[in-house]
Amino acid sequence: MLVVQKYGGTSVGTPQRILRVADRIAQRRAAGDRIVAVVSAMGQSTDHLLSLAHRITPRPSRREMDMLLTTGERISMALLSMALEARQVPAISFTGSQSGIITDTNHTRARILEIRPIRILPELERDKVVIVAGFQGVSSDKEITTLGRGGSDTTAVALAVGLNADRCEIYTDVPGVMSADPRHVENARLLKRVSWDTMLELAASGAGVMHTRAVELAGRRLVPFCVRSAFTKKEGTVVEGKAIEQGAGIAAVTGLPRVLEVTIRGIDAATAASGMKDLSGVRGLTADSYGLKFFVPVDSENEHVLEEMHGRMQGLAVERGLAAVTMVGTGLLDVSRVVEEVLNVLAESPAIPVQALASTTIAVTMYVPEASYAEALRRLHGAFVESGRAG
Amino acid sequence: MLVVQKYGGTSVGTPQRILRVADRIAQRRAAGDRIVAVVSAMGQSTDHLLSLAHRITPRPSRREMDMLLTTGERISMALLSMALEARQVPAISFTGSQSGIITDTNHTRARILEIRPIRILPELERDKVVIVAGFQGVSSDKEITTLGRGGSDTTAVALAVGLNADRCEIYTDVPGVMSADPRHVENARLLKRVSWDTMLELAASGAGVMHTRAVELAGRRLVPFCVRSAFTKKEGTVVEGKAIEQGAGIAAVTGLPRVLEVTIRGIDAATAASGMKDLSGVRGLTADSYGLKFFVPVDSENEHVLEEMHGRMQGLAVERGLAAVTMVGTGLLDVSRVVEEVLNVLAESPAIPVQALASTTIAVTMYVPEASYAEALRRLHGAFVESGRAG
Repeated sequence: MLVVQKYGGTSVGTPQRILRVADRIAQRRAAGDRIVAVVSAMGQSTDHLLSLAHRITPRPSRREMDMLLTTGERISMALLSMALEARQVPAISFTGSQSGIITDTNHTRARILEIRPIRILPELERDKVVIVAGFQGVSSDKEITTLGRGGSDTTAVALAVGLNADRCEIYTDVPGVMSADPRHVENARLLKRVSWDTMLELAASGAGVMHTRAVELAGRRLVPFCVRSAFTKKEGTVVEGKAIEQGAGIAAVTGLPRVLEVTIRGIDAATAASGMKDLSGVRGLTADSYGLKFFVPVDSENEHVLEEMHGRMQGLAVERGLAAVTMVGTGLLDVSRVVEEVLNVLAESPAIPVQALASTTIAVTMYVPEASYAEALRRLHGAFVESGRAG
Repeated sequence: MLVVQKYGGTSVGTPQRILRVADRIAQRRAAGDRIVAVVSAMGQSTDHLLSLAHRITPRPSRREMDMLLTTGERISMALLSMALEARQVPAISFTGSQSGIITDTNHTRARILEIRPIRILPELERDKVVIVAGFQGVSSDKEITTLGRGGSDTTAVALAVGLNADRCEIYTDVPGVMSADPRHVENARLLKRVSWDTMLELAASGAGVMHTRAVELAGRRLVPFCVRSAFTKKEGTVVEGKAIEQGAGIAAVTGLPRVLEVTIRGIDAATAASGMKDLSGVRGLTADSYGLKFFVPVDSENEHVLEEMHGRMQGLAVERGLAAVTMVGTGLLDVSRVVEEVLNVLAESPAIPVQALASTTIAVTMYVPEASYAEALRRLHGAFVESGRAG
């Protein structure tokens, strides 16, 4: 069986943990599997590199950022390969470029165009474990590119597609996909199985377990995968199938504890859109006769972009103090009924005001005051997930 | 004028220092020069990577070591490029592979076979400063290789040859080449001009200013270069010409404060040689009817190799407590006269015993007790360099 595994930054955060990952891989290989392991950068190393760059200049070029950040995964891949060799397991590490991860030229957020595993396949034939640097590729004009934060998940799924792998396993520092963040919701439970589209909404809404584009790609190419802990033997969550096939129900409640509400007045949509290109995770775009309104997650990158937009665009206003709470699942097809119930649940004493609302076929997002974030999560989890109500 | 510069690890050791290097480059470019800047890894980062590897396994594979260690220079090159861009100086960074540094397949100590600057030249035409990751290349079979410790010097000289540069400048953390280590010899002075062959002997004898192979290449391809401080405007040392053309005289006294004396008895030379392949800087090989004797610098790598050889070879003995002191210059052509004087100088009270002696046409090395290292340096510097005696 050919297995593509992905180990996140926490799983390879120290030499000790890298040795443990090597043990896990060695066991699987001894059981007869062929393994391609995609690795992220060790723990906080990407943040360290980012801070070095920002000590040089507040706005480094995206091409040089990619040069800089790709070193992180290369360190972990070489160390993991050494750890396997030290256990007498033949292994070889490859950069994104050597792995044949061909991307477009869009630095810092490139998209994979093609997988050309011309170096990976012969090494698998030679019975080697192949270690691949996640998050990175090489563009059609031979430049080193990155896939954006969390891109190692996408590397793993794309390789599973390109190699026609039998399994794809995402190893992380949590037990799997939870029905809510257990730090906020005591009754949160592990989801044994979720659909690709539910997982996509969860990833996009801030659940943070996986890179959105990885889930999107898995769903489009029908690649089942599992999300599980690198530190235990427990099964985790299997992600496969369509939500519609899995029956009605709210699978999970998630969200972002801090979002910015951005309003632009008196400009045309195209100009606004060009400014927004650099904002990550733009959500809930609405337009009325006065202008455009949207929400973005709070992070330093977005703050930078907004500051810059502020200089160029009159009528741009940023409101702070909001959080986004999202319910995901097929129970949401009748939106108006769900919204009614949501509003009732949140109106219970003390009432949590809903400032705005956005929905897709399988997700509803409420924007509530930042201070009410955890309480809103708990109430909605209790009312919709724990009760098993279909909304 | 096309200038190849090299900045060592201390010169790019912090973001602050990288910004200062960018200032220096920006000034030179404003004066009309085209610049290719080769950079080493920041300060102690190579040591940090080495220690990560050794926490994984005591004997990592050389291919994976190269994967690991090359990340260091990539970090500094990206940061320097960002620093130039932040000063409105157009710049672009290239890895060894992108720079067309083609090497043989000998990992961790590859030799440059060819420079194919197909990406560097067009960027220079576009008036960009080109930043090149030192110490690394790509082998004929597309593997990432390194040139050995200090290899960035070799990258710079090889690029100066390959680009037919007008100047080659080695920036370091010392003012230039000194007549002795000023920490040991108070009267040590800066050498304004030394020949390639004198510099080669100095580098090989432990002066530590430059990579031996870089000097060798410069001499063979007749590339003059200067060695100077990255922190001052002072001129430093110009390295050019042949020793023989520069008149008789001892230019400098250098050495290694700690060497190991290794004796192998009762085995043939070929077996001994195969074991010694992994020892760095093997010096003063002699053979008598009983066996082979040689000296190696004390470092952890050599200690590892000797330990391993010890397991395989009976009759291998390692003696500690010695230092090597080397005098370099054209004044040495009449070796027997020099040796007589050296022995007289060292015999002065308190007498320093000479355990062994080795010579080339322009260098004489004495092996003395470790405790007498600094005193031997001082005496020989006084007697031969300060006096201006031709030996």
